[in-house]
Amino acid sequence: MPKNTSSDLQNQFANKAQAWSARFSEPVSDLVKRYTASVSFDQRLAAFDIQGSLAHADMLASIGIISGADQAAIERGMARILEEIGAGQFAWSIDLEDVHLNIEKRLVELIGDAGKRLHTGRSRNDQVATDIRLWVRNEIDLAIGLLRQLRHKLAGLALEHAATILPGFTHLQVAQPVTFGHHLLAYAEMFGRDAERLADCRKRVNRLPLGAAALAGTSFPIDRERVARTLGFDEVCRNSLDAVSDRDFAIEFCAAAALIMTHVSRLSEELVLWMSPRIGFIDLADRFCTGSSIMPQKKNPDVPELARGKTGRVNGHLVALLTLMKGQPLAYNKDNQEDKEGLFDSADTIRDTLTIFVDMVGGIRVKADAMRAAALQGYATATDLADYLVKKGVPFRDAHETVAHAVRECEQRGCDLADLPLADLQGFNSLIEEDIYGVLTLEGSVAARDHIGGTAPVRVRQEAERVLAETAQG
Amino acid sequence: MPKNTSSDLQNQFANKAQAWSARFSEPVSDLVKRYTASVSFDQRLAAFDIQGSLAHADMLASIGIISGADQAAIERGMARILEEIGAGQFAWSIDLEDVHLNIEKRLVELIGDAGKRLHTGRSRNDQVATDIRLWVRNEIDLAIGLLRQLRHKLAGLALEHAATILPGFTHLQVAQPVTFGHHLLAYAEMFGRDAERLADCRKRVNRLPLGAAALAGTSFPIDRERVARTLGFDEVCRNSLDAVSDRDFAIEFCAAAALIMTHVSRLSEELVLWMSPRIGFIDLADRFCTGSSIMPQKKNPDVPELARGKTGRVNGHLVALLTLMKGQPLAYNKDNQEDKEGLFDSADTIRDTLTIFVDMVGGIRVKADAMRAAALQGYATATDLADYLVKKGVPFRDAHETVAHAVRECEQRGCDLADLPLADLQGFNSLIEEDIYGVLTLEGSVAARDHIGGTAPVRVRQEAERVLAETAQG
Amino acid sequence: MPKNTSSDLQNQFANKAQAWSARFSEPVSDLVKRYTASVSFDQRLAAFDIQGSLAHADMLASIGIISGADQAAIERGMARILEEIGAGQFAWSIDLEDVHLNIEKRLVELIGDAGKRLHTGRSRNDQVATDIRLWVRNEIDLAIGLLRQLRHKLAGLALEHAATILPGFTHLQVAQPVTFGHHLLAYAEMFGRDAERLADCRKRVNRLPLGAAALAGTSFPIDRERVARTLGFDEVCRNSLDAVSDRDFAIEFCAAAALIMTHVSRLSEELVLWMSPRIGFIDLADRFCTGSSIMPQKKNPDVPELARGKTGRVNGHLVALLTLMKGQPLAYNKDNQEDKEGLFDSADTIRDTLTIFVDMVGGIRVKADAMRAAALQGYATATDLADYLVKKGVPFRDAHETVAHAVRECEQRGCDLADLPLADLQGFNSLIEEDIYGVLTLEGSVAARDHIGGTAPVRVRQEAERVLAETAQG
Amino acid sequence: MPKNTSSDLQNQFANKAQAWSARFSEPVSDLVKRYTASVSFDQRLAAFDIQGSLAHADMLASIGIISGADQAAIERGMARILEEIGAGQFAWSIDLEDVHLNIEKRLVELIGDAGKRLHTGRSRNDQVATDIRLWVRNEIDLAIGLLRQLRHKLAGLALEHAATILPGFTHLQVAQPVTFGHHLLAYAEMFGRDAERLADCRKRVNRLPLGAAALAGTSFPIDRERVARTLGFDEVCRNSLDAVSDRDFAIEFCAAAALIMTHVSRLSEELVLWMSPRIGFIDLADRFCTGSSIMPQKKNPDVPELARGKTGRVNGHLVALLTLMKGQPLAYNKDNQEDKEGLFDSADTIRDTLTIFVDMVGGIRVKADAMRAAALQGYATATDLADYLVKKGVPFRDAHETVAHAVRECEQRGCDLADLPLADLQGFNSLIEEDIYGVLTLEGSVAARDHIGGTAPVRVRQEAERVLAETAQG
Repeated sequence: MPKNTSSDLQNQFANKAQAWSARFSEPVSDLVKRYTASVSFDQRLAAFDIQGSLAHADMLASIGIISGADQAAIERGMARILEEIGAGQFAWSIDLEDVHLNIEKRLVELIGDAGKRLHTGRSRNDQVATDIRLWVRNEIDLAIGLLRQLRHKLAGLALEHAATILPGFTHLQVAQPVTFGHHLLAYAEMFGRDAERLADCRKRVNRLPLGAAALAGTSFPIDRERVARTLGFDEVCRNSLDAVSDRDFAIEFCAAAALIMTHVSRLSEELVLWMSPRIGFIDLADRFCTGSSIMPQKKNPDVPELARGKTGRVNGHLVALLTLMKGQPLAYNKDNQEDKEGLFDSADTIRDTLTIFVDMVGGIRVKADAMRAAALQGYATATDLADYLVKKGVPFRDAHETVAHAVRECEQRGCDLADLPLADLQGFNSLIEEDIYGVLTLEGSVAARDHIGGTAPVRVRQEAERVLAETAQG
Repeated sequence: MPKNTSSDLQNQFANKAQAWSARFSEPVSDLVKRYTASVSFDQRLAAFDIQGSLAHADMLASIGIISGADQAAIERGMARILEEIGAGQFAWSIDLEDVHLNIEKRLVELIGDAGKRLHTGRSRNDQVATDIRLWVRNEIDLAIGLLRQLRHKLAGLALEHAATILPGFTHLQVAQPVTFGHHLLAYAEMFGRDAERLADCRKRVNRLPLGAAALAGTSFPIDRERVARTLGFDEVCRNSLDAVSDRDFAIEFCAAAALIMTHVSRLSEELVLWMSPRIGFIDLADRFCTGSSIMPQKKNPDVPELARGKTGRVNGHLVALLTLMKGQPLAYNKDNQEDKEGLFDSADTIRDTLTIFVDMVGGIRVKADAMRAAALQGYATATDLADYLVKKGVPFRDAHETVAHAVRECEQRGCDLADLPLADLQGFNSLIEEDIYGVLTLEGSVAARDHIGGTAPVRVRQEAERVLAETAQG
Repeated sequence: MPKNTSSDLQNQFANKAQAWSARFSEPVSDLVKRYTASVSFDQRLAAFDIQGSLAHADMLASIGIISGADQAAIERGMARILEEIGAGQFAWSIDLEDVHLNIEKRLVELIGDAGKRLHTGRSRNDQVATDIRLWVRNEIDLAIGLLRQLRHKLAGLALEHAATILPGFTHLQVAQPVTFGHHLLAYAEMFGRDAERLADCRKRVNRLPLGAAALAGTSFPIDRERVARTLGFDEVCRNSLDAVSDRDFAIEFCAAAALIMTHVSRLSEELVLWMSPRIGFIDLADRFCTGSSIMPQKKNPDVPELARGKTGRVNGHLVALLTLMKGQPLAYNKDNQEDKEGLFDSADTIRDTLTIFVDMVGGIRVKADAMRAAALQGYATATDLADYLVKKGVPFRDAHETVAHAVRECEQRGCDLADLPLADLQGFNSLIEEDIYGVLTLEGSVAARDHIGGTAPVRVRQEAERVLAETAQG
Repeated sequence: MPKNTSSDLQNQFANKAQAWSARFSEPVSDLVKRYTASVSFDQRLAAFDIQGSLAHADMLASIGIISGADQAAIERGMARILEEIGAGQFAWSIDLEDVHLNIEKRLVELIGDAGKRLHTGRSRNDQVATDIRLWVRNEIDLAIGLLRQLRHKLAGLALEHAATILPGFTHLQVAQPVTFGHHLLAYAEMFGRDAERLADCRKRVNRLPLGAAALAGTSFPIDRERVARTLGFDEVCRNSLDAVSDRDFAIEFCAAAALIMTHVSRLSEELVLWMSPRIGFIDLADRFCTGSSIMPQKKNPDVPELARGKTGRVNGHLVALLTLMKGQPLAYNKDNQEDKEGLFDSADTIRDTLTIFVDMVGGIRVKADAMRAAALQGYATATDLADYLVKKGVPFRDAHETVAHAVRECEQRGCDLADLPLADLQGFNSLIEEDIYGVLTLEGSVAARDHIGGTAPVRVRQEAERVLAETAQG
């Protein structure tokens, strides 16, 4: 018969200090309790903690460590706890430090000794590692879904504007005409890579740490592969010390999130620029804009600005996690508790931001006239003139120089290249003929870029359709 | 008579979209409302927002823009609002976006037209900039106070252990004996610089942006210097565009916080090492430690570990703010709303961490025997032998080489330098005499380092007393 | 006939300002030239730049844009240039800004008009993007090779020490005994994930941007898939605007490098700790250590310390690149020139560090006695006692509490659990029998953790052999 | 007589391994030598290293540890070495690891035993700490000078354009008219704070670590205050352990540099925007721009773009240093060698960038007509109408709403507020009278903002003159 009485055991959970009490001569101070407790943020993991516990109990029962009756009791108790949490009736206590002890204590209250058997062959170290992986896996799946939707919206708009001309900028100077559809598809590519990257990250997330126990494995004959199957993990982590201390997957997820937000920041920068009255390429629907508390005329593109700003926090969380793990000896250290808040906030940020961008892309009103007018300003077809000369046999470097002279002349006259009479153009190079005027139009220019990745409307349509098909819901 | 009816005006605040409504054709979507609202975190600024509003109202009254009666009404309303907030009875609404509109709307409810006059000659842009500066100033003052207390505790313990010898490490190898008091005072220096740095930062925080209005100043004949005096600011910001967009002070504060946490991380690393059983230099009071859910024997130094981990988040917030401000054109952009959460969390982190460290330093139990034993392991006085030879006229570089030979000999014999017979020592250099054995003791070694900054107990005592005096409460 | 004379054309390259000269009224100032020139660092890309140019020339010839004779001349000229660079005889000039113009100008010198035709249908924007991808791809392949070697060395040492017991630490407190081989294999896991991650990154690196030209594609009927095949790219970038502005792959590489260095920092921290005299688990070969200019007895583990420090620079480069790309509008901006130095340094850092670690792992001398002694200090088998009770039917939580009482008793007596007489043990729980003493040995404890990922020597041997097989050179 | 012969002593420097040789059984491997050597980058410190050594020798002589003859020899030798370095004739060797050993070895070659006496009472740990502080102090002084010059240029241009109107933007939407001079002065404020911050940092840089020796001080009766005076330090570091391990000053400098670059990035963003043809507010002199290798018409603002990009590297270096110091135990660890490259590059980046910006500000050509035209687009004086109503007694919130209605009406008519007939304006509020048309002009609007920090030309002139006076060279 165990020496401890039942009332002792209730005391074990009576407050956090009591969870390991017999060894300690004074309780944790209130200040320390607040400083070290994680339950205020890790309660988000509750559903995954319970999912992991049920898989663990199933395995313990399958190898005879707990009875079928115990397993059934655990399932019943956990179902009740899940309900209580869902209904907002669960009494979270910082005395119990974290989500794991809070749930375990409630389980023991509800089902008694069977609850005390659940923690056999595991530790909070492998338990929390499992919970976070389940949580991150879910967030990855959500984010991949949102990226798919966003690409779908972008490709839809791109198809609509496959031939709408706007100036392609480099250095914010007019470079060459492109189509607005082509421009949008650049972002569809970026967000496509983001989805690939998350899918790759998922492979490394989806490995089961449970069974590593505190750090060395357990003396119980556990069946880790059964647990992995139950929880949908692809593999089991092959080293217990690594399993409890590894947070690579969280860092990799945050790095992927940082790239997503980097892409969002670039698109946002452009939306803000395009909304600025001097540029005026688009208008955003009013529902994505706000006004001013003092200037009654303002309509501000708050959403893209705020999204651009949020790049900072996600970069910051990545730095936080890298700093956290630097120089940590094996195996688990309390430092690792700091892995969660930044991770959670990164996932929240990309989820909220992608959700709102999916909607906002549908609220873009394109001002094709302003785009076209801007493309006419800045000798956007100068390269086409150079290419024309090359096709007549002039080495590219010589053609480039000739066109530079022509542009300079136009600047002095205040006209466009297409405004120069043929005779004057021939003064720069006698190979120029009447057909040059077709080459110098915006439409001629974009249509000529007719190869994979080029801005020719026919290509843009193909690409938009490819992306639409790829992102169509099952 | 104004055209708008009173019910229109109530509507203006009915939801966020209505704050600038007449200009907009559709309300902000719920998703956007949640994405852009800051009231969930900026309500922390409420007391400072009210303080700023009262100073603004006082100034408006002083120049006759509002009446004395209006000012009195505003004061009455604000007192009531402060009470409601303190009692947890204030109904914060994300429809009203931020702390400013929430309070202003309630004020109008309470006092009518006088409330609508408050926003004259200011904008939320300069209002929020003022609020944050007031908040940061307060946090700086708290942090400086905590750094003072922590230094006081460190110096107290240092005084007690001015002559307690432990091995001074470089590269975690035994280098030379130092005293534990000397070691502690190194941290008192670091935290002293942190306090200096915050005091310098405070000068740049303590400048008044109010009066910049949205970005250009206001057409009302405001008296900014009066407001500055009322609020205790040293100066007024001298350029309105800069005033509304400047977040340097927040970045500078976060950089100072990152250095504080860097120092905390170094001290924490040492506490963890010193607690490790193989080293065993100290024990931390049980109330700063926790146990294990699986290993009944564990006593873990959770507080220093967690504090070390928190370095990451503060570094991350610094990166977030720098990323945020990079490339932002003047003047205010919505990106800036992202300045708060990281800033708040940085301040909270240093406040909580310093508070707990003040307490924890008092809970360090020094194991002087283990320290001394460790100092005897590793030829800690080899440099003293070299210095001895130099004083006999041997060039330092030659003396260094001679001692290296002697150490090698000791390693082969498995003994310490002081264990070599005089004859053997003289074999390395004939200038060595009997008095060498005094030089080779730990006490002789530390006592010899008797200059400013040296580890001689007499110096350590002086420094500890200097710091104690400097940090004694007024 | 082109209007420009041949001497004009030579002038085009005479200095950087002349590369676009006819359009400009004043040359670039010397200060600007130095500030904007990249040739000092991008000359590293020369071999890849030439490789890319040859593939481009081959394609231009295949579609008839240049003649076979021109292609042959270009190949001849490039071979000569490569020789000159290899021999250190190439005259790099900052007047020519970057690696591309330096090489092109020399090519024109060597082969005349054929050289001027090379730049047809491309731009420096897609050219540099191609060069960097080729460079990164090569670095990834090198790093994957080094990670393989390092894992091989770790697994070899692990096999040798599959049964060498050392204390497993959590919180740097003795937790449970593990084997040194098991501990080493944790790092083999980490470096294995690093290799996976680089292989995933390689997929996104290995896409061809060439053909995007400046930003919009080109009006020449280029065959991008031919170029991709020639250069060994898996795919072509499908959007020209994205192709010239994308630096995701560089960021993803730097993120992977940051994780590699994070793992290196953890291993380094442990090597430094293990070398510290109070711990003394290992010795590093002298060739990885240095001494002191003042303390003749010192032997410092410089290599792991420096490696740990280098984590900082790689994290820093990652932040630099993320900051760089934040908010950049499409397509190419000069900001992007800043992508290279941090990327180069990150790759150099992991290459040098991994190379030296491959060697250093072979230079670890294991002090098994010290490891064993440390494992005996700290009640490392307390969990085994708890598990023993659970197997006798005691709920885990009760067993945990019982053992805590026993540990407390041992601490007061100053003995180990195995030192308690059976009667005393039975006083804690009457289910304890004589066989408990087998459970409480270090060997019994590790042998019992016999499941995938557990520390049982039989498992460690299996894992070591698996890794050895996986990392054996083809 | 010392046992070592003179040839032994030369050998001590023969290669790096020999600097601590007698203790080591195998030399450092070549790979390790390259990995750990710092001479390739720390040779930049040579002049400061020599300056520090001379001050140290002066002190040693003053207290009789070395003779006057030795001191004279050291001075002679060092003068020669400085010459050799200046002439590029000094043979740096990585065998000698770092700048200190390279110089010391050459000194011993040149002057014999006196050279070997120089290292008495110091260590490379305090020596390098001193060198870096001298270096950083110098860079701070240079940067403060450049910031002064840049502010002078900005203020000069601001004075010239004190009344040139451009639209003040918030959210890149037209907010209220400001003057270009006012806008420029916002940057003068930022760079002014940067200079303040560097001056504050300088106080903490300018403390002498020399005398801390390896970590504990020295047994020689050194006079640290004399050395401090000689080297121009304000104070001596008061704790030897802190003195050798402190890199706060480097981090603080990098944080200040990051803010400088943040300001540069904001100004750069605006210069790039203003140069964009759709906005067209300014032109940059050709010497700050470059063209395109493919698009003959391009003129790109390369300098501000590159400067904006360089923000990344400075932020990155800050992160690198913070990561480096995180969790480092006292006292010196080899990690610290990593402090230099990022620090050097940060200082170089701000020096080069500020230098070029001082010049570039003079190359800004203002297009006042485009600025004015833009200010007329976007109801920039709507706030003035609201303020007008407030002055007539309308509560601000009601006035704001009235103007929103008026703006909406204008938008529908496609006209500006000033274009509405008085009757129509009175339809919105009957208090509006004929004098409203003065209020609605751009000039009326800016002139009305006549308080400290406001954009009224009279205020802008005052501020510009204040800054000009403050930044005038002594």
